[in-house]
Amino acid sequence: MSDGPGVSASDILPDGLLGLATALVGIPSVSHHERAMADAVEAALGLCSWLTVDRVGDNVVARTTLGRPRRVILAGHLDTVPPAEGNHEPRIEGDRLFGVGAADMKGGLAVFLHLAGSLPEPAVDVTWCFYAGEEVARAHNGLLLLWAQRPELLAADAAILGEPTGGVVEAGCQGTMRLRVTLSGLRAHTARPHAGRNAIHRLAGLLTAVDGYEVRRPVIDGCEFAEQLQVVSVEGGVASNVVPDRATIVLNHRFAPDRTAAQAESLVRELLAPHLEPGDHWELDDVAPGALPSLGDPVLTALVSATGAPARAKVGWTDVAFFAERGVPAANYGPGDPLLAHTPGEFVGTDELQRAAGVLDTVLRTTT
Amino acid sequence: MSDGPGVSASDILPDGLLGLATALVGIPSVSHHERAMADAVEAALGLCSWLTVDRVGDNVVARTTLGRPRRVILAGHLDTVPPAEGNHEPRIEGDRLFGVGAADMKGGLAVFLHLAGSLPEPAVDVTWCFYAGEEVARAHNGLLLLWAQRPELLAADAAILGEPTGGVVEAGCQGTMRLRVTLSGLRAHTARPHAGRNAIHRLAGLLTAVDGYEVRRPVIDGCEFAEQLQVVSVEGGVASNVVPDRATIVLNHRFAPDRTAAQAESLVRELLAPHLEPGDHWELDDVAPGALPSLGDPVLTALVSATGAPARAKVGWTDVAFFAERGVPAANYGPGDPLLAHTPGEFVGTDELQRAAGVLDTVLRTTT
Repeated sequence: MSDGPGVSASDILPDGLLGLATALVGIPSVSHHERAMADAVEAALGLCSWLTVDRVGDNVVARTTLGRPRRVILAGHLDTVPPAEGNHEPRIEGDRLFGVGAADMKGGLAVFLHLAGSLPEPAVDVTWCFYAGEEVARAHNGLLLLWAQRPELLAADAAILGEPTGGVVEAGCQGTMRLRVTLSGLRAHTARPHAGRNAIHRLAGLLTAVDGYEVRRPVIDGCEFAEQLQVVSVEGGVASNVVPDRATIVLNHRFAPDRTAAQAESLVRELLAPHLEPGDHWELDDVAPGALPSLGDPVLTALVSATGAPARAKVGWTDVAFFAERGVPAANYGPGDPLLAHTPGEFVGTDELQRAAGVLDTVLRTTT
Repeated sequence: MSDGPGVSASDILPDGLLGLATALVGIPSVSHHERAMADAVEAALGLCSWLTVDRVGDNVVARTTLGRPRRVILAGHLDTVPPAEGNHEPRIEGDRLFGVGAADMKGGLAVFLHLAGSLPEPAVDVTWCFYAGEEVARAHNGLLLLWAQRPELLAADAAILGEPTGGVVEAGCQGTMRLRVTLSGLRAHTARPHAGRNAIHRLAGLLTAVDGYEVRRPVIDGCEFAEQLQVVSVEGGVASNVVPDRATIVLNHRFAPDRTAAQAESLVRELLAPHLEPGDHWELDDVAPGALPSLGDPVLTALVSATGAPARAKVGWTDVAFFAERGVPAANYGPGDPLLAHTPGEFVGTDELQRAAGVLDTVLRTTT
């Protein structure tokens, strides 16, 4: 976003986008710690006289108010998952930027900031929405806070989520739920385990069943979804000489948008039922429904067309569902390979950043 | 230990022992938090003019110095495992005392305190040793601290550990080790788990192998031991939408005294090898060797004889091994059912307390 003397913006665009993304990766923003990122984004947007900037908590919203017949919201989350070994700091290799959040989704945020700063008069009114708390339990999601306190900031005719999609539109999204399953046992001294029952040993059957889960792949509107079931945490133990009487796993289930959350939960419960007993606990502690694709919307049609490739299903959960629930057609589109999201080696490339900036620039300049 | 006016000590002996044990259960002393227990024990022993009382940290040692040809040490740990639901507080039902530590081993401590206070002139010199940190990693064991700072306090010709043995002598003890095994994986987004590898799912095979461990039962000096392998804790997880790249279990292995620790570890490793891969971590983080029975010692012979029952093998690890390692023949004998140790419903009965007090009284009054 900065120029050297005598160099035009177009001359430095590649370096500019990669440099901007690098700066963003350099500001740590693990979920619940997004303040510094929100401060930086707010400051950058504040330089654009054509934008009205609002802040609610660590969420920043900037809007054009050109009286256009159609308003598009472009939304991206500020937070990242916790860093893994070796990816705390941004690192450039050739034309690639590595570091936690590079793909998911500071590359997308860089594209948004670049366009916010370079499109004072788009063909549609644009709302740029940067929000906190997407990578954690739904209750912490910044869109919910914005909706509760300033719903007018989120009003739009279509929404584009800047999640990494590898440069093609990913339509709709799968639902996601978190299930907490606690197996019970009976404490005893480890020298006499037959006097008790080891709750951690009981996990063996449960983990085998989860690991053997067969992925369902429904095709909806030509987009193939892929459901998933993964254990994301495990915990148990009393003391080093005590047969443990409790073991807890947390499951993350991703379900296609042709199922309700209740249907999806019931099918997981059926899979695990042979390994559960009276006295065990089953708890649904976070759920977010999916969203069916909405590719008939004119903005989303223009978006698919600008990418030059057919849309595919979004298998991860994204806030497309937030907008879909509120009647706003929404899709995912952003730079970065979605397969790299949350991996230690995630990266984003200059070509991806440029391409995404070009596609969104076209949509925002030409859609009426 | 307290009398009503006009009531003799012998009249209230049953109530006295159960009452004393109740008072001890009423003083919480989870490992690392034994100070209040040590204070109470030190104060009680301080009332006995015939005892020299020393304190090192939360370990209390009281000795007669009668110049007898033989010295017997009676040792008991002050600490308990963490309480379970419903057993934080002492509770009397009929002639039974319930509560964490009732069997392991505040019943034994009550018997020791009673005898320390009622035997000013035993036939052998007696060392009463109350120590901290037995129920946790070996490095925290109070006997090690005493040995390092005041080894003369632990000098003896024979040792009796007051662990719960159901009123019969339990000879020798099994060794114990703690192994920490960390399985590795590869992080990915839970919507695309095939891009990573779930380390928690990998636990399924490991837990199945541990659960299927076949108990070896060697017979040594007529005593049958029983080896054990139990997972005592499990931990893993990164975030609720991340395929976890690490999962750790801690194993407790109990091995018979005919095996060295190295032999025992190697056999466990062989059992689990099919479920381990390069990149996984294997760590031995606590080990205590076993002890062969030493029933030829005159004090231990007298002890077995006073109980009127043959000795059996001690399958749990106890500090018998500490004394055996230092050339002091040692055995376990105390009130309480060893099968109840570390269970939420552990208790000790008046009859067991009285019987143990009677047996030890006989040994200490008559062995020369």
